[in-house]
Amino acid sequence: MTKNEEILEVFNKRYACKKFSTEKRVSDEDLKTILESARLSPSSFGMEPWKFLLLRNEEMRNDFRQFAWGALNSLNGATEIVIILARKDVTGDSEYFRDNWKNLKKVSDEAFEAVKDKFTKFQKEHLKLLENERTLFDWASKQTYIALGNMMTVAAYLGIDSCAIEGFNKEQLEKYLSDMGLLDLNVYGVSVMVSFGYRNEEQPKKIRRELKDVLEIIE
Amino acid sequence: MTKNEEILEVFNKRYACKKFSTEKRVSDEDLKTILESARLSPSSFGMEPWKFLLLRNEEMRNDFRQFAWGALNSLNGATEIVIILARKDVTGDSEYFRDNWKNLKKVSDEAFEAVKDKFTKFQKEHLKLLENERTLFDWASKQTYIALGNMMTVAAYLGIDSCAIEGFNKEQLEKYLSDMGLLDLNVYGVSVMVSFGYRNEEQPKKIRRELKDVLEIIE
Repeated sequence: MTKNEEILEVFNKRYACKKFSTEKRVSDEDLKTILESARLSPSSFGMEPWKFLLLRNEEMRNDFRQFAWGALNSLNGATEIVIILARKDVTGDSEYFRDNWKNLKKVSDEAFEAVKDKFTKFQKEHLKLLENERTLFDWASKQTYIALGNMMTVAAYLGIDSCAIEGFNKEQLEKYLSDMGLLDLNVYGVSVMVSFGYRNEEQPKKIRRELKDVLEIIE
Repeated sequence: MTKNEEILEVFNKRYACKKFSTEKRVSDEDLKTILESARLSPSSFGMEPWKFLLLRNEEMRNDFRQFAWGALNSLNGATEIVIILARKDVTGDSEYFRDNWKNLKKVSDEAFEAVKDKFTKFQKEHLKLLENERTLFDWASKQTYIALGNMMTVAAYLGIDSCAIEGFNKEQLEKYLSDMGLLDLNVYGVSVMVSFGYRNEEQPKKIRRELKDVLEIIE
């Protein structure tokens, strides 16, 4: 099998798993690899505006049933559930921005001022991300979907099934996590969730629009 | 090399390429595989709220220099540039929603009404996506970032370099594409762009936060 064929096979066998095995769990090594693929995912200006919560506490998993209907199938199986948080504070004048460039990437003062100016102009004028808190959060949230996609693809490559979860009441879930001391609402919001486990069902037929319907070649 | 090691190698060799070869082009077969990975990417409710424009026209590539500073490095090389559009019209009562479930997935009238109700509640109450046009567009745009991530990872697996591009003036770019007849502004907005080619530079050192800084295990 060529690499190209292998890739198509992986993408065709990934689907939103509805019924997970209650016995077979993802190995520590595979889970680590999936999480590393998230950590190493690209993000705008390399800002890594995310955090990943691995939900293993049984009581909390049970509580989740109240406000995350999209997670029910996952909670019924032997899955790992990852709650993906997105940052709310990623602006040029934030402490996080300074920490990212000065302490992590260790750029010079001059380079810092230059990237800060560029980033601020980019956010304010080019993509108009500073209109309100929601537009800024949604931009950070978009970056987390890169990590989300990579985790699911890596899982499929390792023969592991997954289910992305947007089906939750965001306000209730955030309040719950905040009450549990797991979320500083000034810094993070819940972006999306994803579960990993092994299927205990037949894969449904994949129905997609054809390439010609979603692709236009401008020649 | 185990599959786990192979994955980490792929993620470590992917970076935002700043200088592309002016000679070596991505093969048709590899480009097809990259685009197929986008088409087969998951999206919320399987709505595929996207379209991909492959920008090969030399005159237009040149025009792009005016309003896409983030694309300059890519335009200077022998790259393929994909403009990723997100749909603005994905609501339960849209024609697109009906087409997706009735014509594409061929569900019964009863199942259609059920998924429509569920979807509307999800958009309106759970994620509050119907606040305004921007919140709805940004949700569709998030889905395109899954495809974006997958395309870059698949490219890296095939030994192809890439650069995600958010550095453009959204308003100007959309007006240009609309004027060229390539974008119906009632249906689509520009979400993000990405280029593919071969590096003509040394890969910079990858700087990332450590896993312990972005992961919390709730036990």
